[in-house]
Amino acid sequence: MKLTKETNFLIVGLGLIGGSYAMALSKQGYKVRAITTSQKSIDYAIEHNLIEAGTITPDPQLITDSDLIVFALYPHTFVEWMQQYGQYISKGTLITDVTGVKVSIIYKIESLLPEGVEFIAAHPMAGREVYGVENATDEIFKDANYIVTPTERNSPQAIEICEQLGQILGFASVSKLSPEKHDDTIGFLSQLTHCIAISLMTCNDSSNLEKYTGDSFRDLTRIAKINDAMWSELFLLNKNNLIKHMENFETEFGKLKQALQNDDIATIRKIMRKSTERRLKFDK
Amino acid sequence: MKLTKETNFLIVGLGLIGGSYAMALSKQGYKVRAITTSQKSIDYAIEHNLIEAGTITPDPQLITDSDLIVFALYPHTFVEWMQQYGQYISKGTLITDVTGVKVSIIYKIESLLPEGVEFIAAHPMAGREVYGVENATDEIFKDANYIVTPTERNSPQAIEICEQLGQILGFASVSKLSPEKHDDTIGFLSQLTHCIAISLMTCNDSSNLEKYTGDSFRDLTRIAKINDAMWSELFLLNKNNLIKHMENFETEFGKLKQALQNDDIATIRKIMRKSTERRLKFDK
Repeated sequence: MKLTKETNFLIVGLGLIGGSYAMALSKQGYKVRAITTSQKSIDYAIEHNLIEAGTITPDPQLITDSDLIVFALYPHTFVEWMQQYGQYISKGTLITDVTGVKVSIIYKIESLLPEGVEFIAAHPMAGREVYGVENATDEIFKDANYIVTPTERNSPQAIEICEQLGQILGFASVSKLSPEKHDDTIGFLSQLTHCIAISLMTCNDSSNLEKYTGDSFRDLTRIAKINDAMWSELFLLNKNNLIKHMENFETEFGKLKQALQNDDIATIRKIMRKSTERRLKFDK
Repeated sequence: MKLTKETNFLIVGLGLIGGSYAMALSKQGYKVRAITTSQKSIDYAIEHNLIEAGTITPDPQLITDSDLIVFALYPHTFVEWMQQYGQYISKGTLITDVTGVKVSIIYKIESLLPEGVEFIAAHPMAGREVYGVENATDEIFKDANYIVTPTERNSPQAIEICEQLGQILGFASVSKLSPEKHDDTIGFLSQLTHCIAISLMTCNDSSNLEKYTGDSFRDLTRIAKINDAMWSELFLLNKNNLIKHMENFETEFGKLKQALQNDDIATIRKIMRKSTERRLKFDK
């Protein structure tokens, strides 16, 4: 199997990410249908040519007819959906997801798969600070990374199809990581940075500081506007990795503070040079 | 006195900021001369019409002839310069600066002023991650804030002229703060954010993470490329404010970590909603 214009795509969960998947696929002529909880979202998506059709109840026929199902749901909703409706997925169907944490989800989903159905997990590292299918746009994939996270149970073919999906969606980079390595990496690059932004935003009464605020503070707090329902769930599902990275950060931050307290300019400058050198590698 | 096309401007220190001041003023037809330590910088600035003339030694005549002197030097160099050459500044001359911290500098400079010379301090909150007059551009002022920090010794006229300078330079916002309030505000908005970016960049071996890195991590570490000589000096000159803000941040970060450790989702979501609500006010 390769993804073709004959492939029947089903998106479960038409939010910002599910809607953006639908847009990218439909624009290129792929056949996309959807299941989501709101009729308004279905109507919007049909009207804007994101999907051909959709339902607000998990229609067994629609599920059975699908070749590739993308789950764009909150982690716990994904698991509940599979427990309730997974039985309707046909043999030979491939399922994938967009979940931001992997270890705590993948093995649970694998245990719920009907015979002949394969789950290949992926994390599209894209988003916006707004929600819902009305804000969906395939633009968010253009500069973003798509990470496929295979397990030992995945076939080379499924991994290849999942990578093909990342390419079709238009991601700048498609790569592979084990679920364990993914969660460690994301705990550092994404979750720790969100914890920092949130704490910076809440640690001081910032009212009336707007007019003195430069780009630095704005850049460091952009992601402090956060979907609390989704991110609290993702944080707790990756708790051990995240707490480890938080502690490493605390240690490093404490070293800098100690050097300041000691008027130890040599150490301060050494830390700054290390940070400058490392950051250079991240210039685009 | 108001700033006019007859005003003789002198910029002391033709780096990124001094050069950008020179460019903004010269573009609008003001008379700008400069003193800096490198002949190459003088040559570049003359060739690119940033200044009319300049010297690499503090020429007494050039200093005496100036009506408004802008010191764009590192803090300790500014103090040393005034100790050595301040005597050449004529009665009636106004001097200003671009220093990023105020309390530890202003009162020292005030004690070094010749009779009839007034110092009105200001902080142009603009910059780039590159240095030197070759990278000077008045573009950096366009979205930036200019803060005048008067003391009890300043005349209303000097404050007004300094605000006029901020307007001429093209800053988006010109405002006033006491030196004490300025240092507290900058300790939070600018210095704390730099400490956080540096620690995020140094707390984990990030080599080979480039291809998994999204906008969040890049945004939070952009300022981790830092001029260690300048910033270590600025940090230590504002040490008490900065350490206070670092400790407030540590406390808040610790609360979030504790809530994660306790699986206390209600507290995590409460912190996230507070951060979201506060950040909304900083949207441009």
